[in-house]
This record gives sequence, C-alpha cells and structure tokens, in this order.
Amino acid sequence: MTPPLHLHGIVPPVATPYDPQGQIDPDSLRRVLRHLLDGGVHGLFVLGSTSECVFLTAAQRAEVVRIAVEVAQGRVPVVAGVMDATTDHCIAHGRQARALGAQALVLTAPYYTRTNQAETQDHFRYVRDAVDLPVIAYDIPVCVNIKLARDTVNTLARENVVVALKDSSGDEGNFRMLLRDLADLPDFALFTGSEIVCDAALLGGAHGIVPGLANVDPRGYVRLYDHARAGRWSEARAEQERLISLFQMVFFAAQDLSAGASGVGSFKTALKLMGLARSHHMARPNRPLPPAAVERVRQHLVAHGLLAA
Amino acid sequence: MTPPLHLHGIVPPVATPYDPQGQIDPDSLRRVLRHLLDGGVHGLFVLGSTSECVFLTAAQRAEVVRIAVEVAQGRVPVVAGVMDATTDHCIAHGRQARALGAQALVLTAPYYTRTNQAETQDHFRYVRDAVDLPVIAYDIPVCVNIKLARDTVNTLARENVVVALKDSSGDEGNFRMLLRDLADLPDFALFTGSEIVCDAALLGGAHGIVPGLANVDPRGYVRLYDHARAGRWSEARAEQERLISLFQMVFFAAQDLSAGASGVGSFKTALKLMGLARSHHMARPNRPLPPAAVERVRQHLVAHGLLAA
Amino acid sequence: MTPPLHLHGIVPPVATPYDPQGQIDPDSLRRVLRHLLDGGVHGLFVLGSTSECVFLTAAQRAEVVRIAVEVAQGRVPVVAGVMDATTDHCIAHGRQARALGAQALVLTAPYYTRTNQAETQDHFRYVRDAVDLPVIAYDIPVCVNIKLARDTVNTLARENVVVALKDSSGDEGNFRMLLRDLADLPDFALFTGSEIVCDAALLGGAHGIVPGLANVDPRGYVRLYDHARAGRWSEARAEQERLISLFQMVFFAAQDLSAGASGVGSFKTALKLMGLARSHHMARPNRPLPPAAVERVRQHLVAHGLLAA
Amino acid sequence: MTPPLHLHGIVPPVATPYDPQGQIDPDSLRRVLRHLLDGGVHGLFVLGSTSECVFLTAAQRAEVVRIAVEVAQGRVPVVAGVMDATTDHCIAHGRQARALGAQALVLTAPYYTRTNQAETQDHFRYVRDAVDLPVIAYDIPVCVNIKLARDTVNTLARENVVVALKDSSGDEGNFRMLLRDLADLPDFALFTGSEIVCDAALLGGAHGIVPGLANVDPRGYVRLYDHARAGRWSEARAEQERLISLFQMVFFAAQDLSAGASGVGSFKTALKLMGLARSHHMARPNRPLPPAAVERVRQHLVAHGLLAA
Repeated sequence: MTPPLHLHGIVPPVATPYDPQGQIDPDSLRRVLRHLLDGGVHGLFVLGSTSECVFLTAAQRAEVVRIAVEVAQGRVPVVAGVMDATTDHCIAHGRQARALGAQALVLTAPYYTRTNQAETQDHFRYVRDAVDLPVIAYDIPVCVNIKLARDTVNTLARENVVVALKDSSGDEGNFRMLLRDLADLPDFALFTGSEIVCDAALLGGAHGIVPGLANVDPRGYVRLYDHARAGRWSEARAEQERLISLFQMVFFAAQDLSAGASGVGSFKTALKLMGLARSHHMARPNRPLPPAAVERVRQHLVAHGLLAA
Repeated sequence: MTPPLHLHGIVPPVATPYDPQGQIDPDSLRRVLRHLLDGGVHGLFVLGSTSECVFLTAAQRAEVVRIAVEVAQGRVPVVAGVMDATTDHCIAHGRQARALGAQALVLTAPYYTRTNQAETQDHFRYVRDAVDLPVIAYDIPVCVNIKLARDTVNTLARENVVVALKDSSGDEGNFRMLLRDLADLPDFALFTGSEIVCDAALLGGAHGIVPGLANVDPRGYVRLYDHARAGRWSEARAEQERLISLFQMVFFAAQDLSAGASGVGSFKTALKLMGLARSHHMARPNRPLPPAAVERVRQHLVAHGLLAA
Repeated sequence: MTPPLHLHGIVPPVATPYDPQGQIDPDSLRRVLRHLLDGGVHGLFVLGSTSECVFLTAAQRAEVVRIAVEVAQGRVPVVAGVMDATTDHCIAHGRQARALGAQALVLTAPYYTRTNQAETQDHFRYVRDAVDLPVIAYDIPVCVNIKLARDTVNTLARENVVVALKDSSGDEGNFRMLLRDLADLPDFALFTGSEIVCDAALLGGAHGIVPGLANVDPRGYVRLYDHARAGRWSEARAEQERLISLFQMVFFAAQDLSAGASGVGSFKTALKLMGLARSHHMARPNRPLPPAAVERVRQHLVAHGLLAA
Repeated sequence: MTPPLHLHGIVPPVATPYDPQGQIDPDSLRRVLRHLLDGGVHGLFVLGSTSECVFLTAAQRAEVVRIAVEVAQGRVPVVAGVMDATTDHCIAHGRQARALGAQALVLTAPYYTRTNQAETQDHFRYVRDAVDLPVIAYDIPVCVNIKLARDTVNTLARENVVVALKDSSGDEGNFRMLLRDLADLPDFALFTGSEIVCDAALLGGAHGIVPGLANVDPRGYVRLYDHARAGRWSEARAEQERLISLFQMVFFAAQDLSAGASGVGSFKTALKLMGLARSHHMARPNRPLPPAAVERVRQHLVAHGLLAA
C-alpha cells in the first residue's frame, strides 16, 4: 500500500547539466539541486522534459535519480519522469527509479506510435500495476502528439491509477474544468507546467506548479506560491509579472533554435552564468545558445537582480 | 478623431434568435438584449461567432445592429462584428455598422484564403483606414485558421490600428504576455473570450470578458467582474465555479452536433426555455438541440436557479 | 431532371483579372477565357479558389459567370464555385449562377463555423435540394478546416447529391480509395486539384484535373491528358515533369507572401506578362508579386517557351 | 568508403512476431522473412514503424537484425531502422546494427523533443559521421511531429549525408518534386511508404516501395513493381487495385483501436492466419485485433486468394 504523496507547491523540473562532452556533470547537478532546495521548493521533479529526459540513457537516468535522492535527503519528495515511447520501456525506467528511491513516477502517453485514448489509459494502468509507486499523469501533447482527454484523466483518477496531473498542454480551460471535476478526491493533486499563468492556476485551485524557470529563480516561484496560499493575490500577481519578465529569456535564441532548445538552453545558460553549472551544453542535436544570446541572458539576469553586474 | 471607446467589463456576444423558418426574430432579439442590459452588462457585442454572424446576410446584419442600437439607447456601447472572408467585404460591413450607430468594429483575420501575418496586419490597416470607427482585433484561430501572433497584436496596437483585443484563442499564456506587453498603452483593452477562466484573466489584468454564456446568466458574470474589480478573489472564484458548472450544458449534445452547434445551440435552447426567444433554431446546416438535450438543459437551468422547476 | 454533366479532362479554375483599383477587368477575363478555350480545355471552372472567389461580391460573381457563359458559347461546360461560409449564402450564389447559365455548382463544406461530417452532409443536401443544378463536391481542408471524409463522399455520391468530386486535399491515397469505392457509379467523376501529380491521378483512374497552372499553360495540361487517355504514359510523365518545372514559379515570392498569394499571384503575373491580363493585382489584403519576383516569372516563362525572350 | 547501396524495388518493413508474453518469436520471424524472400522482395527493412521498432529493447533490436541478416544470407540488402528520440541513442542503435551486418540505417528526425529543420539536419549529419553505413532518411511526420522539408532532403542528399529517402508523409506532391530535384544524383533513391499509390509513385520515377502490406502479399507488390519497370502500366494499375482492395483490412478494427494498432494488427493477424506467425499479439499498450475483426481478416484473405477457405 503506497502512502499518499502529498505533493504540492513548487516542484521544478530539474535541469540536467552536462559537461562539454555531453556527459552528465554530477557536481553541477548537485549544485543545482542544492540551489533549488535552498530556494525553498516543495519537491524535485527529475527527468522531466526540461531535464532533457529522453536524451539520457538508462544509466544516466539512474545517475540523476541517485544524486537527487542523495541531495534531497528526504526533505522533499523526489519524483522521476519515466518518459519513453512505449509501456514496457516506461516500466523498466519506473522500476529503476523506485529502486533508487524516487517517491513517484511521472508518465506521459506513449509517443512515436499513436495510441488512442483507450490504449493510453491501458498504458497508465500497466505501468501502475507493474511498479509500486504513485503515478503522476503528464499531459504534454506538444511532445507526445496526444492530449489526455478530460475523460481519460477523470477515469484514471477515479480508478486510483494516477494520483496527480501535471498539465503542460496549455489548455487552461480544460485544466480548470478538471480541477472542478476532481475536487471531491481530496488526495488528487493538479499541477500546471506553465511559468506564466501560475497565479491564475492557483486562484483556480491548482495544488502546485512545475515551472522550468524555477531552476533559475526558485525563490520567486516560492514567494508566488506563498502569496497565493495566503490569499495575497495582488502580491502573487506582482511576483508573477516579475517572473513573466524574467521568462522572456526563452525567446532570445528563438530565431535560430527550436523553441525547446531556445527555452531549455536559456535556463542552462543562466545556471552557468550563476555559477551553478559548468557548461550550458545541451544534448545533441540541440545547439547551445550562441554567444550573443548568452550575453543577452547575462544582462537579463543582472536586470532582474539574479546576477551581479 | 474617434474618442476612446473605454470598453470594459462584461460584453456578451449577443445570440441571434431565429424563427423556425430561419429568419431573425426581432422581438426575441429585443427581449435578449433587454435581458442583458437588465443583467448589468457593460457593452453589447452583436454579430460575433456566438451570434452566428457569418450565417447572416448584409440585410440581416443591418437589422441586428439597428435593433441593438435602438434597445441600448446609448446606455452601453454597441460593438459590431464585421466578420467576412476578405478585406473589402469587412469594410462594407463596417461602413454599414457605423451608419447604423455601432461604436466599434470587431474584426478577425481573413479566412478561407490563408494570409500570413504581414498580410493580416494589412487587412486590419485597410479596414481601419476605410471606416472611421475603432477596431477591436478578434483572435479566433479555430474559425479563421490563423493565430494573431504576439508581434502582430503589438504592432497593430502601437500603430493605433486596433484599440482592443478579444482573445478567443485559448492561449492564456500568450494573452498574459500581451497584457504585460501593452500595459503602457492606457487606452488599450484586452478581453478574453473564455467562459471558464475569467477570474484568472481578470487577476492577470484583463479589462473585460466576452462570454457566450452571459446570454444565459448575465448577472453571474457581472457579479464575477464586480468581485474581481473589488479584489474579492475568493468570491470571484466561487462565482466562476458556479458558472463553470452552468457551462457544462454546452456538452449536452456534443455526441451528435459539432462543438459550435452544441454550444451555441445550448445557449439558444436556454433562451427559449427562459421565455426570451421563441425558438432555439440555428442557421443551416446546424441542427437544433434534440429533445433529450433540450430536457437536460431545462433541468440544468432549474438546478442552477435560472428557471422555476 | 438534370442531364448528366459528363465533365472530364482539363477544367482550369479560371483566374479573375482585376484592374489596379481592384475591380474585375472584363476584357482581361475574356482574353483569359479565350486563351483557355483555344488551349483545348474541356471545361471552365469559374469562381474557384484560384479565381479568388471569396473576395468577390455577389455582383462580381455574377459578372464572372455571365462573361464565362458568353465566351464559352456552349462549347464546354461552365461550372461555378458557390463558396461561402454557410448553406443559405451558397444557395443564393447557386441560384444566381444557374440563372446566368452555369451548368453545375462547385461547393465546399461550410467554413468559419466548424461543422461535423453529418452537418456537412446536410449542407450539400440543402444546396442540392434548393438549386436545380448538379453539385460538385470540393474538398479543400486548407481553406475550410475540414476534410470531406471518405464516408461523406461515398454517402453523398450514392444519394446522388453530388455528381463529382474535386479533391484539393493533397491526400492522394484517400483519393485513390475513392476512385475504387465509386467505380460502380458510371456517371460519377473524380478530379484532382493537383498540378504536379496529374499523370499519377489519371493512371489511377481520375476523370480529370483542375490545375491552377493551366491558366498559364492550358495546352500542356491538355497534352498531358491526351497522352494519359491514349495510354502513352511515358509521354504523359514527360509532359508532367515539364509542368512541374513550370510550377516552381509559385514559390518565387514565397519568402514574402502567403503560399496562396505567392501561387495565385504568380499565375496572374504570368497572364499579365503574356499579354492576357492588364494587371497582376490580387484582391486585398494580398499584395501583388514584387518586381524581383515578376522578373523571375518572366525569365521562367521564357525558359519554358511560353514567352518570347 | 561505403559502396553504393543500390536499394530499389520492394523493400517491406518486416513485421516483428511476438509470442503471447510479448517476447520476440524467432521462429515466426524467420518464417516471415523466408516468406518475403520467397515472394521475391528486393530488400528487407527491419525495425521500421510497422515492425514496432520503438517498442523493442536494444537486445530485441539486435536479435531482429541478427536473424534477418542470417536468413537473408546476402541475397538482398538488410536495412535497419534506428528510430529513437535523440541523436546519441540513434548512433548506439546504428553501431549495433552495423556490427550485426545491416547494410544501411533508416533514420527519422528526433522525436518527443521538437527540433527545427537545422537541428534535424545536424541530427542526420551526426549519425552519418558516427556510423560507417549509408543512411536512409525516413520522413514520417505522423510519428515524429516534423516533416522533413524539401530543402532539408535536398541539402542532406547533396552533402551525401543520406543516400535515399523513405517518404511516409503522404505528401505525394512534395515527393514528386523531390524526384525531380534529385534526378541528377544517379545513386540517390526515393521510396514511398504508401501501399495504395505505388503505381503512381513508380510512374513518377520512384525507385521503390516500402509497403507494410507486402508482409501479407509480397508477390503482389513484386508483380506491381515488375509491371511498372516494364512499362506495363495498365497491368501495374490492375495489380495496385487488387492490393488496394486487400489493404482495406487495416480498417477492420479501426472503430476500437488506434489507426496504427488496427493497421499493423491486421497484418500480424494475417501472418498468423497464414501460418507464418504463431501469435498476432502487438506490443503493449496496443491490443490485438478482437475476434470479430480476426474473422473478417480471415474471410478477406480467402476472398483475395491468399488463404484456403
């Protein structure tokens, strides 16, 4: 019997620092994790999309979970993405993550192959049956080509197959209806993957946020969350607006790079500039931010008080 | 020189009641308009998507504007959709609407033909140049196949080509960034077309809402707006949740009808059941809600206190 | 009782020349029509997408049909597009086209509003019932946002609601399956809207082609069709390859203009350079090809033997 | 220096038979491979989409390549899919496939992560540089979410990064333009992944076909190819029409299963009914065809002369 996870608050998708040869840099990863814990985050989501999960081998995924569990020391839950194209691969990742101490799995629909909603529901059921850990459904159609339908989320939640939802679909209206649909399940938690409508999601009843930008400014998101929990909505909105301003760095290389590489690349660049990661490399074929964009990120961090001039 | 429009608050897209032969029913339209004004709405948007604008002939469009201006008696602004496939048709609709007393035009990108962002910007410029009325940009990619890019809205706003945006794209993140982008333009107003994340949009700084559901329950949306303006966010959220519950009627016929017909059809059905419209017919080829769905709408209205049992 | 239409062969969507003020230029239109008839085409499709149909007023549409019927003098069928957003508008266009002598209507699904397949089938039924002319279904999802499902085409064909299909969906596999599905209906005709896989479509059994590029080179398409009908497939392929080369002009302005404006604009530019149309203007908001692209079209026509150096 | 591959003709994406526990069934795989070779195919494409490649572990992928190379005995080329989400994983699969005797790699764009065209081009370059085998570009946007742009294919072909294209995009017009673009590269080969417009693709100059349905009826596709090569286009078309009829089995379970599961599942069902595979199971979460659909496949095979009544 798995105990309730009680995941809530700010749960950043932890960036995965590489060395220039494309290997995981464990020291940099430890620094990023401590930076997040020092910033007051309420959980750590390793091996998410922002973590470049699908670029990692099974051994690298193990290394990331091991380090996160070691650094967290049980102070906050560590949840691990098990993204892979198909059910049995996800189960293998899930078993490994459980053995290494992860407290929950984060699971998307299958990808490459195009499943329908019924097959997608089975996918979640198979993984839940095979690994004795709570499962968090991760809705990210931009990556996996299918949106978890409102009915699918309701079905999986009421069957206790999934204990939470991370919604990165951008469909805030549907998210809001799910919050209402599932309000009678006291242990079910709904998270938005948005960086920029967090105050709005919290006003609507969201239990937490999974913002990639929290790698750069965890304290900002924790403040936003604290304001919202206390009903200080004007202050929450002001903090959100500061973070929207900070977020604009994701567009600095968007002329040249894909949206993903420009966004995650800007976070990794900030981590390097802040002295947390040794390199801002991304996994191939993504290219790191070019020098001009790196300089824009530097000035942006200075302007937002996150870096000395 | 056009005076500022100062459009804000609840501006419902007014449903257009038909008689069973598919002609506009002027008495029903007057009753709906008075129902909205009595409900406290801050403006009237006739000839929107919910109004089945594109189904109407030029003469019918004229009739709608004439009646709305007559009923409004200047108490609230009447803004008129001029949706059509291409620039010159929109200009013709715009001139007619101006002559009949509309105070602003609501304009989408061209449709059927697929324009790019530059051509779309020209479209707005041409209409603005040709008709001496303020123009409200209407972003509804589900109908017109193109999203107004963030840069397009910024450009048109700063050129004073458009004075407001109605965003029905569902992209709440982009809407939030636009609110921040345009915060320095004191007269520019941003409206969401959503029925279900209105509290969130208002928290983010939106100036108003254009909810189709306000045809059915204008008072609910006005209360929501008043709570938000006064910073009573818990009350705003509670009202929003009541309205989300009411909104579920749009899905009652979704198994059989297209989303648009099921949604607009449910509003027209409610207006009939509430004694405001004589018929719940929609324009061809849309079919009215079948009897079982009509009965579900009736029970739903009763359950929400909008109809006596 | 409408007699069978027996439409087949090369049926170009006739370009609509404008004067620089954006009005239809009747003399230019007559020259284009005679150029097509002299080129040996088997039918004339006025008011198609390439004809900028949706940009035209009802009066302009009438003028185009009147001129085409007058120039054709019954030598080939004149079929008229009745594209509009909704059923009753299409019926009005259809009645006008019939009164002016068109021999069939070309009809798409409704647009702007999003209908489902059942509502779309009703749309075709209503128009067929209201206008005593054969109806040709026109599948162009890029413009109208819905693909006519294989089942919809089969249903409408077997109900005798439509007598032909013009397929501009680009889904050649589905087109091929429809050819097989409907092979037992001797009077049903299937046309492809493609300019570049015409030999392939004819090999698969297509009854004809509706290529925009035939405005520029009707003789080339007629030769291609004649080769195919005679089973001279190598010659058909060689002619197709020449036409694919000619077709590349549609990309000359694609950096600046939308695909539609770049494509139709290149045809109108060619017609001007060939002395058939007085102007290469397009309807607003589309911009005409810029001078550099005009010069490229000129050289391209020379290189393909369609213009003296 | 890799010798030219000279891949051409019928190169089926070999189905991967499983046992009911979801493990590869080597004996069934050998029977399927011999069935294809006996049918006269010109190459074997293992680990394609139809092969459920992305469902397999590295060890299972190795087993498939090893068995295919062993059964082929050098009589026809064995090319191996190396589909994975990102560059370095594809390289690992490629090195393994090379070590086991594959003669070329088949490579898609990265997936899950969304790369742009430039990053996608780099992906192909990195894999080509890292593995000394010819690379075949595989364009399958339905699975990987990005279409290989015409310019990308041209660039990679002229840089000798890829030696062939397998086009499963369904965009026959673009495929035809690529055939023309690359006609001056004598060793570059273009394959269509279509089952139903093969005669058309061959008329247009395609070098070969990669039809999943050839698992069921290799002789039919070989006959089609032979007719086309000999210029017997009427016979090619007749054979194609027979195969289109056979192909309809992919829709027998489409009400319940995703398109992929219904299609691949119907092929696996046919292989079982024909005594080649012991089971018609698919990898989880896909469900095998239900009994009623199995029975329809059986009757269909009988009707097409591929199974005794």
